[in-house]
Amino acid sequence: MCAQYCISFADVEKAHVNIRDSVHLTPVLTSSILNQIAGRSLFFKCELFQKTGSFKIRGALNAIRGLISDTLEGKPKAVVTHSSGNHGQALTYAAKLEGIPAYIVVPQTAPNCKKLAIQAYGASIVYSEQSDESREKVTQRILQETEGILVHPNQEPAVIAGQGTIALEVLNQALKPSVKVYAAEPLNADDCYQSKMKGELTPNLHPPETIADGVRSSIGLNTWPIIRDLVDDVFTVTEDEIKYATQLVWERMKLLIEPTAGVGLAAVLSQHFQTVCPEVKNICIILSGGNVDLTSLNWVKQDERPAPYQTISV
Amino acid sequence: MCAQYCISFADVEKAHVNIRDSVHLTPVLTSSILNQIAGRSLFFKCELFQKTGSFKIRGALNAIRGLISDTLEGKPKAVVTHSSGNHGQALTYAAKLEGIPAYIVVPQTAPNCKKLAIQAYGASIVYSEQSDESREKVTQRILQETEGILVHPNQEPAVIAGQGTIALEVLNQALKPSVKVYAAEPLNADDCYQSKMKGELTPNLHPPETIADGVRSSIGLNTWPIIRDLVDDVFTVTEDEIKYATQLVWERMKLLIEPTAGVGLAAVLSQHFQTVCPEVKNICIILSGGNVDLTSLNWVKQDERPAPYQTISV
Repeated sequence: MCAQYCISFADVEKAHVNIRDSVHLTPVLTSSILNQIAGRSLFFKCELFQKTGSFKIRGALNAIRGLISDTLEGKPKAVVTHSSGNHGQALTYAAKLEGIPAYIVVPQTAPNCKKLAIQAYGASIVYSEQSDESREKVTQRILQETEGILVHPNQEPAVIAGQGTIALEVLNQALKPSVKVYAAEPLNADDCYQSKMKGELTPNLHPPETIADGVRSSIGLNTWPIIRDLVDDVFTVTEDEIKYATQLVWERMKLLIEPTAGVGLAAVLSQHFQTVCPEVKNICIILSGGNVDLTSLNWVKQDERPAPYQTISV
Repeated sequence: MCAQYCISFADVEKAHVNIRDSVHLTPVLTSSILNQIAGRSLFFKCELFQKTGSFKIRGALNAIRGLISDTLEGKPKAVVTHSSGNHGQALTYAAKLEGIPAYIVVPQTAPNCKKLAIQAYGASIVYSEQSDESREKVTQRILQETEGILVHPNQEPAVIAGQGTIALEVLNQALKPSVKVYAAEPLNADDCYQSKMKGELTPNLHPPETIADGVRSSIGLNTWPIIRDLVDDVFTVTEDEIKYATQLVWERMKLLIEPTAGVGLAAVLSQHFQTVCPEVKNICIILSGGNVDLTSLNWVKQDERPAPYQTISV
């Protein structure tokens, strides 16, 4: 713990050393057509190619390896988490690497492909309702029954430090250290934006309805101070903007991202961003994961593409 | 022309020099999970990331640059082709690079995403029926009207030499030169297999019904001798095997290939291949393209995955 925040930059550097033998250094890809559409140079950090299909393995593995070195008898009896899916898969994978049983509390409504993947990796799934309260309650019960340790998906400091290793790689691969940091989130799940506006942590009032299932959970006490002080601005995007951006990455870059990973590009392509940030010429967008439920693609559009798609030159 | 075949290895080397400033050196990717499922080391040559979304730009650009150096007045008046899509897109792109009008004869039944892309790249589309005869007839008419030059999708020697540059890259990137070459095709469009069996060119009798729309055309007079003498074996796969392999690449590698590009992996995973080629440990599979019609994915399966998917360990 450093003074202001639950982690320091040194924790991120330690996490990098801690996990680098077991995670991919994912590539940064570019697309001339997307540069043309955005009117800037975009650099896509491809965490969809990461182990378990999303960046979440970084935090999960850093947390588990930290627990092992902290535990007197060598290993925790079990690890437990609640997760819309990607952290669940990641924690399962990391736990298996280290020979620890994993219990994952998952809402019934999570995409089937995520549940199947968690099972395939070998964890025990425990179902909850979709509300934060139900998840919390079921998680507490499992923690008691297994004498396990909770690895929170986004408030556990070791998890936060692990996810931060993406930035270390991006700084090496694509950008100079003098960067601005923008956050992007669905308009339907805009707790981050509301918190920044009001200057205090303002969680979503209800379980939000968004195709970006990975960001339905609210930010929390540990992440809020970091976002408050270190994120330059937050951009919200509509469901249609998320779908358009996601489909653009599929069709033009051939990368099978999940809709949550389309939120960043959606923000960059939004009218609001174009107006507010005309001077930003180089942008790195983190494609957070690729665990998409292919049977749910009934929203994919064919004939009504926005103009940029049809008028691109080569 | 060399003695035996319409092109020589030197033509492939010349093509490489001819096009390398304008095509991507596409990456070769691997997947530990797919290695596990296949029981071998697989190397995926990612031509879905190629300019225009498939390997076809290699042949198209080589052909057009050859035409320019052959034409007395500097440039041909127009280039014309018939194509199920990817060669059409590629020829359009290559023609635009060199400032030449392109006319593409496309069957009405081709995927919409391919037609849209051809239009977006700036070519004139001319429609034909699906039969080879209709394509041929419409193509001849357009050639006369435009005084253009035909760039055949797969029998033009300069196109064949251009496509061969994939092999040069693969040899550098992944494999030793002492390789075997296997062909894979849908059981429903098995003209290559039938030709090899009978020892003579045996085109498909009817327009074949297969999800792999890129290989509906039959092999021809120029490619048959090469296949006859230099391809070690041909493996045919069912439509279900193609769909399974394609979905596997999507879900596990996050690469949005088109079903035609799934044919190679389908062959490698087939029982027949496993039985006939147990000694082959390292396999490079060419993921030929990524121009998939996302609105046609009603065949994607969720709950009936074959066993390997569910039993993989990490």
